[in-house]
Amino acid sequence: MTYRSGRHFLQIPGPSNVPDRILRAMDKPTMDHRGPEFAELGKTVLAGMQQIFKTENPVVIYPASGTGAWEAALVNTLSAGDRVLMCETGQFATLWHGMAQKLGLDAEFIDGDWRHGVDPAAVQRHLSEDRDHQIKAVCVVHHETSTGVTSDVAAVRRAIDAAGHPALLLVDTISGLGSVDFRTDEWGVDVAITCSQKGLMMPPGLSFNSISARALQASKQAGLPRSYWGWDEMLQHNARGYFPYSPATNLLYGLKEAIAMLLEEGLDNVFARHARFSEATRRAVRAWGLEVLSLVPSEHSNVLTAVLMPEGESADRLRAVILENFDMSLGTGLNKLQDRVFRIGHLGDFNDLSLIGTLGGIEMGLSAAGISHNKGGVQAALDYLAEVAAGGQDCARQRVA
Amino acid sequence: MTYRSGRHFLQIPGPSNVPDRILRAMDKPTMDHRGPEFAELGKTVLAGMQQIFKTENPVVIYPASGTGAWEAALVNTLSAGDRVLMCETGQFATLWHGMAQKLGLDAEFIDGDWRHGVDPAAVQRHLSEDRDHQIKAVCVVHHETSTGVTSDVAAVRRAIDAAGHPALLLVDTISGLGSVDFRTDEWGVDVAITCSQKGLMMPPGLSFNSISARALQASKQAGLPRSYWGWDEMLQHNARGYFPYSPATNLLYGLKEAIAMLLEEGLDNVFARHARFSEATRRAVRAWGLEVLSLVPSEHSNVLTAVLMPEGESADRLRAVILENFDMSLGTGLNKLQDRVFRIGHLGDFNDLSLIGTLGGIEMGLSAAGISHNKGGVQAALDYLAEVAAGGQDCARQRVA
Amino acid sequence: MTYRSGRHFLQIPGPSNVPDRILRAMDKPTMDHRGPEFAELGKTVLAGMQQIFKTENPVVIYPASGTGAWEAALVNTLSAGDRVLMCETGQFATLWHGMAQKLGLDAEFIDGDWRHGVDPAAVQRHLSEDRDHQIKAVCVVHHETSTGVTSDVAAVRRAIDAAGHPALLLVDTISGLGSVDFRTDEWGVDVAITCSQKGLMMPPGLSFNSISARALQASKQAGLPRSYWGWDEMLQHNARGYFPYSPATNLLYGLKEAIAMLLEEGLDNVFARHARFSEATRRAVRAWGLEVLSLVPSEHSNVLTAVLMPEGESADRLRAVILENFDMSLGTGLNKLQDRVFRIGHLGDFNDLSLIGTLGGIEMGLSAAGISHNKGGVQAALDYLAEVAAGGQDCARQRVA
Amino acid sequence: MTYRSGRHFLQIPGPSNVPDRILRAMDKPTMDHRGPEFAELGKTVLAGMQQIFKTENPVVIYPASGTGAWEAALVNTLSAGDRVLMCETGQFATLWHGMAQKLGLDAEFIDGDWRHGVDPAAVQRHLSEDRDHQIKAVCVVHHETSTGVTSDVAAVRRAIDAAGHPALLLVDTISGLGSVDFRTDEWGVDVAITCSQKGLMMPPGLSFNSISARALQASKQAGLPRSYWGWDEMLQHNARGYFPYSPATNLLYGLKEAIAMLLEEGLDNVFARHARFSEATRRAVRAWGLEVLSLVPSEHSNVLTAVLMPEGESADRLRAVILENFDMSLGTGLNKLQDRVFRIGHLGDFNDLSLIGTLGGIEMGLSAAGISHNKGGVQAALDYLAEVAAGGQDCARQRVA
Repeated sequence: MTYRSGRHFLQIPGPSNVPDRILRAMDKPTMDHRGPEFAELGKTVLAGMQQIFKTENPVVIYPASGTGAWEAALVNTLSAGDRVLMCETGQFATLWHGMAQKLGLDAEFIDGDWRHGVDPAAVQRHLSEDRDHQIKAVCVVHHETSTGVTSDVAAVRRAIDAAGHPALLLVDTISGLGSVDFRTDEWGVDVAITCSQKGLMMPPGLSFNSISARALQASKQAGLPRSYWGWDEMLQHNARGYFPYSPATNLLYGLKEAIAMLLEEGLDNVFARHARFSEATRRAVRAWGLEVLSLVPSEHSNVLTAVLMPEGESADRLRAVILENFDMSLGTGLNKLQDRVFRIGHLGDFNDLSLIGTLGGIEMGLSAAGISHNKGGVQAALDYLAEVAAGGQDCARQRVA
Repeated sequence: MTYRSGRHFLQIPGPSNVPDRILRAMDKPTMDHRGPEFAELGKTVLAGMQQIFKTENPVVIYPASGTGAWEAALVNTLSAGDRVLMCETGQFATLWHGMAQKLGLDAEFIDGDWRHGVDPAAVQRHLSEDRDHQIKAVCVVHHETSTGVTSDVAAVRRAIDAAGHPALLLVDTISGLGSVDFRTDEWGVDVAITCSQKGLMMPPGLSFNSISARALQASKQAGLPRSYWGWDEMLQHNARGYFPYSPATNLLYGLKEAIAMLLEEGLDNVFARHARFSEATRRAVRAWGLEVLSLVPSEHSNVLTAVLMPEGESADRLRAVILENFDMSLGTGLNKLQDRVFRIGHLGDFNDLSLIGTLGGIEMGLSAAGISHNKGGVQAALDYLAEVAAGGQDCARQRVA
Repeated sequence: MTYRSGRHFLQIPGPSNVPDRILRAMDKPTMDHRGPEFAELGKTVLAGMQQIFKTENPVVIYPASGTGAWEAALVNTLSAGDRVLMCETGQFATLWHGMAQKLGLDAEFIDGDWRHGVDPAAVQRHLSEDRDHQIKAVCVVHHETSTGVTSDVAAVRRAIDAAGHPALLLVDTISGLGSVDFRTDEWGVDVAITCSQKGLMMPPGLSFNSISARALQASKQAGLPRSYWGWDEMLQHNARGYFPYSPATNLLYGLKEAIAMLLEEGLDNVFARHARFSEATRRAVRAWGLEVLSLVPSEHSNVLTAVLMPEGESADRLRAVILENFDMSLGTGLNKLQDRVFRIGHLGDFNDLSLIGTLGGIEMGLSAAGISHNKGGVQAALDYLAEVAAGGQDCARQRVA
Repeated sequence: MTYRSGRHFLQIPGPSNVPDRILRAMDKPTMDHRGPEFAELGKTVLAGMQQIFKTENPVVIYPASGTGAWEAALVNTLSAGDRVLMCETGQFATLWHGMAQKLGLDAEFIDGDWRHGVDPAAVQRHLSEDRDHQIKAVCVVHHETSTGVTSDVAAVRRAIDAAGHPALLLVDTISGLGSVDFRTDEWGVDVAITCSQKGLMMPPGLSFNSISARALQASKQAGLPRSYWGWDEMLQHNARGYFPYSPATNLLYGLKEAIAMLLEEGLDNVFARHARFSEATRRAVRAWGLEVLSLVPSEHSNVLTAVLMPEGESADRLRAVILENFDMSLGTGLNKLQDRVFRIGHLGDFNDLSLIGTLGGIEMGLSAAGISHNKGGVQAALDYLAEVAAGGQDCARQRVA
């Protein structure tokens, strides 16, 4: 790659742009992870993650990417052949389902069209039919990174309860946590799964499980073989601020800074900021005459927006034109959406002017690629953001509040 | 200052945004500046700066900011009471004139209205009247950072020659070098002056003099007292890659990287890029119905644009609104332009999308501050930049070529 | 922790001191791991690791610490209930054995006294008795970080071959690779396991498997459930420079730099350097009248030295005195060696003067802690290192060559 | 330079080893030096430097190296032809004297042998003879970096007072401040001069003047031409936390961190630490049978030790052997001491184990270079440092207290 002036716009839906404060926090000598100083770090990040997850239960941190935390959630709570109920919200739900099968689980998959979130009624129906409670866990993706569609986790919990079913609720909030509200305890989530490179603004390499009392109980009986992912030893060492094997120390330095930054800004402000970016982005998309993939307004993601291409146009060609001309990376369409959508990440360490630059790059890219569209998308975003700044009607803020 | 998400937009006309590559290059242990490894560094940056200055004569590097290099140019070439001819192009010309007076020079100042560059005819007239050649130097600011007006240095040289006058030509190209073309040798510049925090993309702390053979000759007789700024010892040590006193080693690490980046991109590409940003910015300003301070098209700066406020509106209030709401710093109006103009820096390590973000911040700021203007500035810039990207008529590129 | 002047001496046997070049290489914006630029990085580090492992077979890289790579080696090649033969060389062999049991393997453990390496004759005996080839794998730790004892991997391979046994050879070279010679292909290692924070000079967070053709073949039949660790998808994506899930991008930046540094220095020079440190350290230990844990000279580790305390003295108290007074971390005794030994790490990015500082800290610590010893350990090391520098008899260099 | 493993030992008497905390503090985006956030930084470092200088008078900070602050002290307080009294303590006093002459001052130079500090009696004698008070300033180097000899500044002040002479006292404490005690106000120093790369642990590029009320008064009449160095404008802008021209912003980030580190450790602890290093170093030198250049015990520098070579041996060859074999830079002998002494820097961010490494490098270097010496220098240092750690008789600490 030849040198290009200015900062690259990394507007994929994760990894998000890592702020300098975090990069610099990681750029420090690795310490002895069995020494006294480490315990302070360990306790700080473990407690901080509980705040971010909004849980009073333990959170464990793996030196692994998010896929590892999916596996950890399954192998700690389930046994070979166990039935689990999963919901096809998009590519990541599909991958998780594939993993469950590989691990020897009997994973049922409720069909979906990749434009809607989980249907709580369908979950309730399936569970009600499972009279002898063979389904051990319901697995849902809170925030589908492949589609930009959010699922209503609290409603899924209500559906489980309405069915009077004891299944555990395992939730992937990989692209949501730290950008949109997530209430582990209030929503009755048994295991919440996330990783470092989205709302936590970090490079990839860390992933997380929150563990409810019921999940912990389940882990005592769960029969899937496990060692690296085992909660028991992890929790035992975490109690004193340590880890059973070498932690990714320098990433933990970054995590400490990330948590501090989120709390400095205030989680509610973080959520409102993301809601604002998301509303502005959709206004731009509509002004261009393009279609947002997510169909139900209450399910629109605040973290990314997947945009459908006009019939006959290639999303990947547009992305290539934009990368070439304007040095911006956008997310590709995955699996059945390949070349049909592009995804705009507007998450993490991000502000209004960078969003305007991002949308400007897309509007210019549409022109440069010769794709039919209306001008005025950036203008629509400007109008909305200026209105919010002027203290006018802030739909986003209201929606969050 | 509380934490704000996303990157601050530092759109003052210098210091420009320092790219990570340069910051990281500086983030290294200081070396022994008398050891063998240092000589390699010294020779590399000295030779590199000759390329940037387009000169085969020596360039010296001071651990000092640009003001120091002004002083160096004067004290090395002049004696107490010497007459010098200076031209009032704006605040920095005015400050340099003040410095000349403080140093005991007899500094004549050709009036200007801060909206035009140097008038070569006026220079020629003054020199022609100076029949006994008492004027020892003509001092001009190539690129007035306070007004966004460029002066035609080659024309000034022609004026001096046309007058048959032996005065030295000392030129401040502080905000120009590395962003707009500057040809030290071809234009017959005797001392060119610059510093690190503009086109060189560095933090402040280094400044430079190029030294023509005639300037060097003049320094043998020049009587102003000098030690720190003395060229003689500097050149003597530079010959082997060293410095007579402690150089700002870590800033030199950054300079080495900066020179490499400019040459990787190619100077002509760098100049075309700045011309493009400048044209896009003026189109936005005009679309808003505002006025560019610079009056003559051929003198418009490619590095910054100074914008006149509508009558009765405060530029500083607008800047405060923008800083508060959109986390962007713009340049203030200086001296007689105080509160009357704001200055948009579009120099250094910068790209199209960041420019769109910058202009978006101004357009939203005008709204948020309730200042009467037309919408469509950002749109005008988008249209222009998309046209350039599409390979359409690139006025900027043509103008440079 | 209050501020302490100077650099902390991190002389545990890993994480080793991370050099600034690597920290700075990691301190860069995370890139799109599905973009074109990433593929270059991916291919570079994958090919580089083959050079370090001295293999022409593929190497895979996990975003995980070394324990994960142990698990990967087992779950990719084995099925539930499979017999494996392991050798008790110390705490890490013991932990790996425990992991094998947790994963449902029938793991036999050849006893050891923690002061010797693997006994190839014993391995051969066990394999010869396994006439129907139920043992699927022999697992040995090349370099026991808990004891400072090296095992002769080539001899183990010869033993397997001599027994005419088809078992795979899985080797943990976690603390050896990159510091002492390791010849994956020449020694017939089927899976070699390592991680980032030892000879590779990185922070923890990456781990590795090399995969022989036979190991790959075994993975087609192996029945242990796996997803995150699965070689198949990994190799499929690696072929084009990508990863099946988010890689730890910033750690890969560091890895690229680490590989470059090892190759710049030259692997043979790296090995000779470690041999020199190790010899100097043992001379110091003997001069103090203390005992090196490793009993057989040809098995002495070049990476760390475990030192037995005099009867009745606490190793942990000595370590605490040294940390408190001289800001140096030493490795603790593990498991049955708890409080009985301390371990001196002399691996990774390290030089003669830092070794002298390290040994000086121990000699002063022995005094400060009131532990009976002879003076002169540092002097013995100085004498040896000066002799080597003077080109005198370099036992270490000879031993390596 | 080819890559060498481990950290370079930069044991010249400045630049000292810059700690990571400071490098990382500098590795941040440059801010608008006219914006509100800057004023906080400016006020913090200006107030912090008053604490370090132990003065209630203003301190000014130049973007310049130490030589610039020498010039600033002279041009702000003196007029062309003024008589000043200077004392030949070594190379830096000699250079400062040369500067005074270049600037047109009538600079008297009291002879010295480069092995003693300033003789207060000689100063008093000269001043007493100057009955009409033509001598306007006495200039002394508190801490001669070329010789490792300290002068008694308080005694010089007493000598001036005893002579009843109104001359200003200008003191270069470039290599002393921040490492050894310096009491600007208590000792009646009118202008104290220092720079960033010694006790302040920074890279070069910043220098300082403290300004007494009398010095400020003198500056109103002083006639030497000045602009860049002018205190008046500097103080005017500093009052609000700003600077009259671009400050070296990123170096100021580092300075803020440096001040914080010194105050965290506690100045008295910093001074005691340096005294300890210095005593240990001299014990090593004597054990080798070599001679410390400084002749008077009370004048021994705590920051560096200059060591005389045995007759007929080249110091520069020894330094080259040590650099080549042990990757350590030592200071060269300057001017009349060229090749006769080497200088060991033991200042700044430094600890006991790095000192042992440093002394080890010298002892091994003496061997490798075949220079006749006794062994046991490192041992002597170890014995002393262990004794101090054990709470034994700490001569150094007593001397400081």
